[in-house]
Amino acid sequence: MLLSATGDILAETDGPCTNHWLVGVDKCIEGIYDMVQKAKISAGLDPDTQIHSLGMSLSGGEQKAAIQKLIDQMSERYPKLSQSYYITTDAIGAMATATDHGGIVVISGTGSNCKLVNPDGTQVGCGGWGHMMGDEGSAFWISHLAVKTVFDAKDNLAKPPHDITYVKKAMDEYFQVSDLMGMLPHLYRNFQKSHFAGFCRKLAEGANAGDALCQYVFIQAGKILAQHIVAVLPKAHQELFSGELGLPILCEGSVWKSWELMKDGFTQVLSQAQAAHSHFQKYSLLTLRHSSALGGAKLGAQNVGANLPVDYSSTANVFFSHSFTKQ
Amino acid sequence: MLLSATGDILAETDGPCTNHWLVGVDKCIEGIYDMVQKAKISAGLDPDTQIHSLGMSLSGGEQKAAIQKLIDQMSERYPKLSQSYYITTDAIGAMATATDHGGIVVISGTGSNCKLVNPDGTQVGCGGWGHMMGDEGSAFWISHLAVKTVFDAKDNLAKPPHDITYVKKAMDEYFQVSDLMGMLPHLYRNFQKSHFAGFCRKLAEGANAGDALCQYVFIQAGKILAQHIVAVLPKAHQELFSGELGLPILCEGSVWKSWELMKDGFTQVLSQAQAAHSHFQKYSLLTLRHSSALGGAKLGAQNVGANLPVDYSSTANVFFSHSFTKQ
Repeated sequence: MLLSATGDILAETDGPCTNHWLVGVDKCIEGIYDMVQKAKISAGLDPDTQIHSLGMSLSGGEQKAAIQKLIDQMSERYPKLSQSYYITTDAIGAMATATDHGGIVVISGTGSNCKLVNPDGTQVGCGGWGHMMGDEGSAFWISHLAVKTVFDAKDNLAKPPHDITYVKKAMDEYFQVSDLMGMLPHLYRNFQKSHFAGFCRKLAEGANAGDALCQYVFIQAGKILAQHIVAVLPKAHQELFSGELGLPILCEGSVWKSWELMKDGFTQVLSQAQAAHSHFQKYSLLTLRHSSALGGAKLGAQNVGANLPVDYSSTANVFFSHSFTKQ
Repeated sequence: MLLSATGDILAETDGPCTNHWLVGVDKCIEGIYDMVQKAKISAGLDPDTQIHSLGMSLSGGEQKAAIQKLIDQMSERYPKLSQSYYITTDAIGAMATATDHGGIVVISGTGSNCKLVNPDGTQVGCGGWGHMMGDEGSAFWISHLAVKTVFDAKDNLAKPPHDITYVKKAMDEYFQVSDLMGMLPHLYRNFQKSHFAGFCRKLAEGANAGDALCQYVFIQAGKILAQHIVAVLPKAHQELFSGELGLPILCEGSVWKSWELMKDGFTQVLSQAQAAHSHFQKYSLLTLRHSSALGGAKLGAQNVGANLPVDYSSTANVFFSHSFTKQ
């Protein structure tokens, strides 16, 4: 997203995955450079124009040393790209797109992550460790839970919570396998997280068509995503609860498209948590109307002392609100 | 293990990992060839001597198509190595080393696996799907459970069952990290299953020194390994329960060295299962005194119609026996 100093959006472009942990530093940098050049051309600018600030909100933009290395390599390889660089995570970029008063952001796409941002800018995270150590409630996790339920049922290692027939058939079709052994290349030699996670879409179809096991895995996802919020709740400043919306929870990532399937699990866990937090009387779920690149750009500008005016009344929508009533 | 037609052991050698899923087909084949050549030299034979039957008991030797490919490539690359080839899994090789009457074999090393072999040779498996879909009760799984407990406690996502101080410190030392972020390369870019699983040894030390969380993860391992046995129990033929030892359970892999740490969890799960299986009155845990290569060689010979006499009274030891008494 290319913005003028007055906060007007001059151009928007998109490009390939830029998580440097997944695609490597070179591809990450090239992808970003290409997007910037496309944006300048699309805004009718000379592609050699140097931009003032390149603010990046990147999945995988967490580790300080790795971020500095990324910035160093970017300015070395493309010295005229930008006068300054700033990298933050996708979570923080999303939050800065929705509000400058803080809140909680919960990402559930291929992976998952949760971040509390207090009004003073301090942050507390939960999750975001990738599929080997977390990613609970993500598309990968939902797909894995469904597949593991089939494996355990076939092995008689655990009783499935519901009949596995539909999920087994959907798995055979999606992964093009005829038995459990056929899943091994998908899990090891040819493992691709995004392809594995893509099975989640088939499970959403099954859930919407009424399959109980498909519905179950989404309810579990709702529960564990809410549990991430409960994890950071004790660190949330009082002010975050006192706005008109109650606690603002920004929901990012494609799994939230299946909100209706996760709702019962999600609301149940937050209701249980309410008992221990008396100031937690209401919460609202928001979704962004703009790309979280807007927040990245704003934070980038802020980092060099400039204030990009953003009209926060138009950047996010409330799609669900809940007030706790006394039992 | 090189055997004469009369079942005498002429030589024993060892070599590198031969799991073709992990090291690739080429390294697997070369490793096996080198071991055979070393064995012939060590037995005082001309290294050009062709052996009659090469019986292999391989971790990863499960999938029929992959096994045939392995044999084809081996005989093409080393046409004078052996007159015949036979590949089975490490589990079946271990079982054939201990007895020709069947039983249950439970492997817990870096990974885990369980196989029931009935007296008629029919097999039923549980687990053995690797770290992405199982490996419950293995060294990898124990290490992962301990590390995940630290992550979840630090994230406030789940309350740890016991204080994490000891495990966190052992983790920092073993993986040479100072924070959770430092674990990411060990989980992704530089992931090595065997190195990750090696942390289990440190946890065993902690458990023996009295740390409650270390003890907890081993008890969980005992429970889930026993659960693998419970999973195959309904398919076990009556005769398997009626011998002097009761149900024979062959325990292979380095995690069984920590049997005393797993015992309470293991025996508890089998005692609960006993209620549903009235003929299940006793079980014995056995460990091999010979390499499971002996079973592989025996099955290889059997495959070409030869019987290698094995004295089963000396191939395995009973290290634990339990008789259920009426409550």
